[in-house]
Amino acid sequence: MDNRPIALFDSGLGGLTVLQKLKELMPNENFIYFGDTARVPYGSKSKETIINYSKEITSFLEKQTAKLIIIACGTASSLAYEELLKNFKTPIMNVIAPTTKNIKSKSVGVIATKATIKSKAWETALKKRHKSINVISKACPLFVPIVEESLANSPLADEVIDLYLADFKKKPIDSLILGCTHYPILIEKIKSYLGKKVNVININEYCAKEAKSFLKENHMEAKANKNPSLVAFVTDDVSGFKKNANIFCNIKFDKVSKANL
Amino acid sequence: MDNRPIALFDSGLGGLTVLQKLKELMPNENFIYFGDTARVPYGSKSKETIINYSKEITSFLEKQTAKLIIIACGTASSLAYEELLKNFKTPIMNVIAPTTKNIKSKSVGVIATKATIKSKAWETALKKRHKSINVISKACPLFVPIVEESLANSPLADEVIDLYLADFKKKPIDSLILGCTHYPILIEKIKSYLGKKVNVININEYCAKEAKSFLKENHMEAKANKNPSLVAFVTDDVSGFKKNANIFCNIKFDKVSKANL
Repeated sequence: MDNRPIALFDSGLGGLTVLQKLKELMPNENFIYFGDTARVPYGSKSKETIINYSKEITSFLEKQTAKLIIIACGTASSLAYEELLKNFKTPIMNVIAPTTKNIKSKSVGVIATKATIKSKAWETALKKRHKSINVISKACPLFVPIVEESLANSPLADEVIDLYLADFKKKPIDSLILGCTHYPILIEKIKSYLGKKVNVININEYCAKEAKSFLKENHMEAKANKNPSLVAFVTDDVSGFKKNANIFCNIKFDKVSKANL
Repeated sequence: MDNRPIALFDSGLGGLTVLQKLKELMPNENFIYFGDTARVPYGSKSKETIINYSKEITSFLEKQTAKLIIIACGTASSLAYEELLKNFKTPIMNVIAPTTKNIKSKSVGVIATKATIKSKAWETALKKRHKSINVISKACPLFVPIVEESLANSPLADEVIDLYLADFKKKPIDSLILGCTHYPILIEKIKSYLGKKVNVININEYCAKEAKSFLKENHMEAKANKNPSLVAFVTDDVSGFKKNANIFCNIKFDKVSKANL
């Protein structure tokens, strides 16, 4: 038994889709969510900057006595994971390894931010596990602003999906990995655009399952708890985040505080 | 005569459109451009955060012995200008005052980032000078990512223009102020969308004229110079900025350095 919180971080709101899955699967756990809202987005920034920001946040979350830290951001997962493993003692997970471990696919598309695609993190991780897998990657930089601006259900979202995914209709992929934690908000539209032949993969599901297994194997699960705590730290203003978290994912936190990194 | 540089800052690339106008009008001057590329964009962030970032940058630019600091960012102009005037000795200009001083309009539309529109900075400044002016404001949060992703000439840009500006076709405006320094990249498309009856105002032109007049009146112009210097400081990686500055505005700097704020 271990009642310390699970902490997860993202550049802003995207990681809330991971939090949803984690809470669904582990209703007894206490959670801390960290959104780096003053410096969002990460997807267009350099590896060095993303590593620096990720280290600052991980250090902050260790001080909050997290028992497990999940990088709930596709970009930080791609660029900062190895560096965090080297520098911190707390167990750390990302959103890439759980998916690459479990995927069954011969030819897979990966869509993500520019920084993630440039890093080739998905390609490298997939080919390490599945030597003959074919990987086709594409950066989709407008998906994050579309989602952050609550335009996921607008006709504009359809236009942007067509702009980025038309190529995948012509290519023989059997699966498409949504390599950014913002993208699950668009999953139904993407599924209907690509049709039934393509398995659209929500990385958050694999990530949540892996976190649950890890805690179970290490006897680190929280005891039964009717009122687990759900708190957040953000780097920009608190009230804006509360409102957006509610619109974005229908999530209400017990408390949201400003973090001074 | 004063050969110290003119400094200007923006959250990222948008201020380069201001730099272009300044260089056109004042070819003898030395310039320092500051792009806060590790924390871009500002337009979706809080007033407090934008003031903090603007103070850090202004302090940095004062140390570079700037003779004039121009806030070449619509959002920081709206939210941080007054605070910077209070805290720094170097003359400071923004992109709002020069336009509001010169505008001749009865009913004006203002488009800008969410933070700018929320601040009502344009509305307040316009009504202070022109008591009976009618102001209709609209936030256009996707224009910045469209421009930063080099999609300004794509059909998608037309869709987004229609999404945000359709309302202005129905309203009796005689002018439209592009209240964000990214938007001049879209000016031709916006002009053709709104038609000849609406005067589309590029705030950079007023800003550059004001800067020139200020230096002349105060005998602070640089002496004739065939090779004025053009340097930049950025907070994210240098090579990415060099490439983007070239694509975005065809601007080449003598030197780009990383600033540690």
